Amino acid sequence: MKQYVYGFDVGGTTVKIGLFKVDGSLQEKWEIKTNTTEYGKHILNDIFNAISKKGISLDEIAGYGFGVPGPVIQGKVVKCVNLGWEDYDLESEFASLVGNTVIRVSNDANVAALGEAWMGAARGLQNMAMITLGTGVGGGIIVDSKIVDGAHGGAGEIGHMIVKHKDGFLCNCGNTGCLETVASATVIKRLYTQLMIQEDKALDENGPSAKYIVNLARKGDPIALETLEEVTYYLGYACQVLSVTTNPDVIVIGGGVSKAGPFLINKIDDNFRKIVFKPVNRTRIVQAQLGNDAGIYGAASLALNNG
Amino acid sequence: MKQYVYGFDVGGTTVKIGLFKVDGSLQEKWEIKTNTTEYGKHILNDIFNAISKKGISLDEIAGYGFGVPGPVIQGKVVKCVNLGWEDYDLESEFASLVGNTVIRVSNDANVAALGEAWMGAARGLQNMAMITLGTGVGGGIIVDSKIVDGAHGGAGEIGHMIVKHKDGFLCNCGNTGCLETVASATVIKRLYTQLMIQEDKALDENGPSAKYIVNLARKGDPIALETLEEVTYYLGYACQVLSVTTNPDVIVIGGGVSKAGPFLINKIDDNFRKIVFKPVNRTRIVQAQLGNDAGIYGAASLALNNG
Repeated sequence: MKQYVYGFDVGGTTVKIGLFKVDGSLQEKWEIKTNTTEYGKHILNDIFNAISKKGISLDEIAGYGFGVPGPVIQGKVVKCVNLGWEDYDLESEFASLVGNTVIRVSNDANVAALGEAWMGAARGLQNMAMITLGTGVGGGIIVDSKIVDGAHGGAGEIGHMIVKHKDGFLCNCGNTGCLETVASATVIKRLYTQLMIQEDKALDENGPSAKYIVNLARKGDPIALETLEEVTYYLGYACQVLSVTTNPDVIVIGGGVSKAGPFLINKIDDNFRKIVFKPVNRTRIVQAQLGNDAGIYGAASLALNNG
Repeated sequence: MKQYVYGFDVGGTTVKIGLFKVDGSLQEKWEIKTNTTEYGKHILNDIFNAISKKGISLDEIAGYGFGVPGPVIQGKVVKCVNLGWEDYDLESEFASLVGNTVIRVSNDANVAALGEAWMGAARGLQNMAMITLGTGVGGGIIVDSKIVDGAHGGAGEIGHMIVKHKDGFLCNCGNTGCLETVASATVIKRLYTQLMIQEDKALDENGPSAKYIVNLARKGDPIALETLEEVTYYLGYACQVLSVTTNPDVIVIGGGVSKAGPFLINKIDDNFRKIVFKPVNRTRIVQAQLGNDAGIYGAASLALNNG
């Protein structure tokens, strides 16, 4: 009986592996190192070896899903700079190891969104979007329970939505004013530090984490509050844009800083409510539930022909 | 043989009717008046009577598609203020006239986008978006050849994407800074008129049309050019946002003013290129091809189980 499904979240440093029952219950999760030598040609073998040790018969596995750090178009990996893959037919390559079964791949941020839609904060909802606040800002969009990849694998690149028309900061992508330049965890730290310096306040050498700053704001710290107002203004704005484009049921906010709890989410929601287009005001802003496991959940869901 | 399909574009004043072969060739089109009395209860009867006169056997008709001026969720019309419909089960109502066959309905702007995807400027492409410049600004988004309706029927409401953060004009929706307030045909006329008055230039009583203003700009008229720069800046911006959300192959610009030709489209494209996120820079901006017929084409396509 095909009672299991594997989800792989392939990153530049580690591959996260999740073994699930097809009902979505996580049986086991672990990580292996990503071997990026020789254009990443060993990665799939390493994954296969890692799961082979578990002693589960291939006949019991309904499918294998992958989230990868780069654009994917119709099952073909276009490019993953961190892995060394380019025009990589992952599905065929992995089939040469596990045989002719269900193998699916999509972009990791999109897959994380699917994970939250399957078993997380958007469980049971067909239309959602996810914004992940980390070093940068990632995103994914689900429409009618399917990942939106887009024509060139660039859908859900919400971090590169331009939100500041004038005097924007330079983004790694070469543009100025991207959401990523005004609303990541990194930005929360930078803004807070700048404001502290302006006020001649002392800071630890490394400064506090974004999550800590959110907690300071919750307790009423004025500089932390000012930081949060700025950041959540742009996040609320991005939510407005999403609400009139794909009109999701919920927009899930993820990333480590989201774990600071409802204070951040409520601030984003407040800013969203101020500018929401009335006919779509049922869109809700919610906190992610799966943390770093969203990727393995989403990858498994993808293999079950969701997404 | 089911060789025909009907597309209906239901507006507040007229219903446009298109009779197509299933291969997409338009056989005949005509209009009837929309009878909005008694909460629009006669509209479907009037449509049925109009097509009955054509003498085509019901057995020859593969399906009936409708575009309606309001949000639709999973085949149910939520509300069409102009028609008097609210929570209207159009598909069941029309089935009581034509029997148990394929009947499909979606929002008219989304349906127009589908029309351009089926037989117009985005023919053969699975991922596209459409922006229609008229009195207001309409929009529709197609992902994997399907209309995106969204969780509450509000997807593709691109005219209500906020694009101006500060000092925005008040929109009919109650917000300020919506795309519709800075980029419709109406806005082109208003901006041009304002600039002419500032310069103490004479104007005809009604002022020139938006299309005429685009032509003036093409010929080098400085005030018309200034108008177009402002309007196409925001349209290029909206295209940037679309390119990183659903990442369409093409963005089709429609509405009467788009008929002024490549000058307007090129200006939008120029502004889009300045700020496009590199990985999605293959998204193209193109002119609509089906004019006012996009709605009947899209409705017919919807009935053929596309969209």
